[in-house]
Amino acid sequence: MNETITLLQSHSSIRKFKDQQLSDEQITEIIQSAQMAATSNFIQAYTIIGVKNRNTKEKLAELAGNQPYVAQNGHFFVFCADFNRHNLAAQIEGQDEPLALHSTEKFLVAAVDTALAAQNAVIASESMGLGTVYIGGIRSNIKKVSELLKLPKHVVPIVGLAVGYPDQQPDTKPRLPLENVYHEEHYEENDTLIKEQLSTYNQVISAYYSERTNGERKDRWTEQITKMLTVEKRKTLKSFLEEKGFLLK
Amino acid sequence: MNETITLLQSHSSIRKFKDQQLSDEQITEIIQSAQMAATSNFIQAYTIIGVKNRNTKEKLAELAGNQPYVAQNGHFFVFCADFNRHNLAAQIEGQDEPLALHSTEKFLVAAVDTALAAQNAVIASESMGLGTVYIGGIRSNIKKVSELLKLPKHVVPIVGLAVGYPDQQPDTKPRLPLENVYHEEHYEENDTLIKEQLSTYNQVISAYYSERTNGERKDRWTEQITKMLTVEKRKTLKSFLEEKGFLLK
Repeated sequence: MNETITLLQSHSSIRKFKDQQLSDEQITEIIQSAQMAATSNFIQAYTIIGVKNRNTKEKLAELAGNQPYVAQNGHFFVFCADFNRHNLAAQIEGQDEPLALHSTEKFLVAAVDTALAAQNAVIASESMGLGTVYIGGIRSNIKKVSELLKLPKHVVPIVGLAVGYPDQQPDTKPRLPLENVYHEEHYEENDTLIKEQLSTYNQVISAYYSERTNGERKDRWTEQITKMLTVEKRKTLKSFLEEKGFLLK
Repeated sequence: MNETITLLQSHSSIRKFKDQQLSDEQITEIIQSAQMAATSNFIQAYTIIGVKNRNTKEKLAELAGNQPYVAQNGHFFVFCADFNRHNLAAQIEGQDEPLALHSTEKFLVAAVDTALAAQNAVIASESMGLGTVYIGGIRSNIKKVSELLKLPKHVVPIVGLAVGYPDQQPDTKPRLPLENVYHEEHYEENDTLIKEQLSTYNQVISAYYSERTNGERKDRWTEQITKMLTVEKRKTLKSFLEEKGFLLK
């Protein structure tokens, strides 16, 4: 196993950071690494907002659900899908707003492009000894987050990322059995088998929590997931995306 | 710059592979690295299909737009968003199909989860000296790709990935100026400035193509992008996703 694979496989999210800010050199290295991720047809459909200002971080933390690590970290990034520059590119070429920007296909392209760049930022950060945690909570009040960051039409926040010097060392969390996630040649649609795999995994996860909480917590994975999916969250996302010119057809 | 950052920043997509297959050990290492990517609320909302069979690869290549490297590579992966297992998880917990699965929010969660895992697979592969290229073309005939891979309801292909031993050494392609992609504190909505940045970048990209084609090709980035976005592609994506139970609200 080489150094990079060891790094990838020892990932865990960090939710407590030391009070030390990233240097501008570190931020540049992270952004340059993010930019070198593959991009669909060279479209480069994202913009990254970096937040240093403590007041802005506090406001973001409030909007994202009051997690302290959104405010207390070494740097906060917001990865946004961005077609504003493509609209301006069309103006340079003497064209109107390109119709494809409104399609579900291009929304997916932009979201995936953004996520690939974000993951490169995570790997770059972790390779420097920094810790990271993604913040989906920025979508909980997405319109207010968008206003705070002054995002124009065609630009939407996809995910936040807190980066900093770790002040905790969480264990890695065991993932689903490989054979549940990886199928060869075609999808193995065997409900009985999948349920067996999930039940075995439930035991792994219950033991994981139990060991770390002196037996207080014993959640099954299927229990966690079902509880989460029973509550519908962020119901305004569709209308927000449409307002911003995405997902219109 | 450490070894991992050097790797991230020297990425270029490989579109010609040697006729050598990945070993099962390499595939396992790649999948395990993919699985350790962060996942929203531990949802792990993806399944990866690995294709070895040459006939299946040939069919995928045909459906994706006849790129030879979809058939000729060391291994082909299809990264799929998957809520089928979450539906089965709910059954284990004695619940009906969770309503949140149908939301735009959860489609975005699944697409981002899938992309983060895919990018870890890319980094793991490249760290072993392998080359990679993402294949968005699998969405060109997404229904037929889905049938070929026997994807059930709640499972959709997001992106393909060809991996193999490189048989070419393309240069890295210069990305957008950092200051165009990275803004501090808030989005810098200055159309004049953005257009200036894009015009400067056009010169970089024209020179890049010109140098590599003895002056035959001199595309501007804004020209490429505008041409691409003027054509609406993959118009059936929205209805396909809805059929599969995604993006219904």
